[in-house]
Amino acid sequence: MDAAPRPRDVRLADTRHHLESDIDLWVATAHPDGGAPGLVPLSFDWDGRDLLLATGRSTPAGRNMRASGLVRLSLGELRDVIMVDATVVEVPLSSVPSARWEAYAARTGWDPREAGPDHAAYVVTPVTIQAWREYPELVDRMLMREGRWLP
Amino acid sequence: MDAAPRPRDVRLADTRHHLESDIDLWVATAHPDGGAPGLVPLSFDWDGRDLLLATGRSTPAGRNMRASGLVRLSLGELRDVIMVDATVVEVPLSSVPSARWEAYAARTGWDPREAGPDHAAYVVTPVTIQAWREYPELVDRMLMREGRWLP
Repeated sequence: MDAAPRPRDVRLADTRHHLESDIDLWVATAHPDGGAPGLVPLSFDWDGRDLLLATGRSTPAGRNMRASGLVRLSLGELRDVIMVDATVVEVPLSSVPSARWEAYAARTGWDPREAGPDHAAYVVTPVTIQAWREYPELVDRMLMREGRWLP
Repeated sequence: MDAAPRPRDVRLADTRHHLESDIDLWVATAHPDGGAPGLVPLSFDWDGRDLLLATGRSTPAGRNMRASGLVRLSLGELRDVIMVDATVVEVPLSSVPSARWEAYAARTGWDPREAGPDHAAYVVTPVTIQAWREYPELVDRMLMREGRWLP
């Protein structure tokens, strides 16, 4: 099952490709006061720096992201993992530039501006990005640290 | 993109099939004292009632499961979701019957008893199970509530 580890530049290119072209990702959240962990699939857009999410403000994901400012995202699949630890800020849908929503809608087929004021935008800024397939790739899986792509 | 919703019995059969034959799932965890959410892929076995996981006791997943007793698991894919909210108990590897580890190893290719005492078993008892593909299946997605399969 275990393939040879990808060279670092291939791993980086694969990761950027997922960020640029995937539609959905897993969103893990937690509330600072404790309680059950949150996990939900959401659609996203990526502008080369931040990921843009949209969901209901009263959903577990919305509540947890608003309260904690932290999120862990996974793109890809169970044996081709891209893991993003990030800060997140909730902002009104209307405060995101139209061009950004147009890119989001072109990618996902859904324009959150149609959803109304119970929804919000969540601007996610990656701090750490890791990518690995199976066991042989656990070494050297860190691609971004403290918000900077590693050389 | 949106297919017609599956009848309930099909959804239930698909869900049982994933529990019986998948190798890996997503494990979302949170610490009761707050902090960043945890998310990691792990292998599992299912005996028809509980899911069995194994991981390092000092990993974020291990720490969070031990401290909170709660876990949210996802099997399947981003547009074919099976979501399990569950209680979880950490127990020593040696306290799980051998036959259970043999089933785990046959399924996953890894026998956690080789991992040593820094690892533990996590026995996950589902409380709620939901399954949905895309938007049309959000209705009627609840298949188990309070630990009982719904009729």
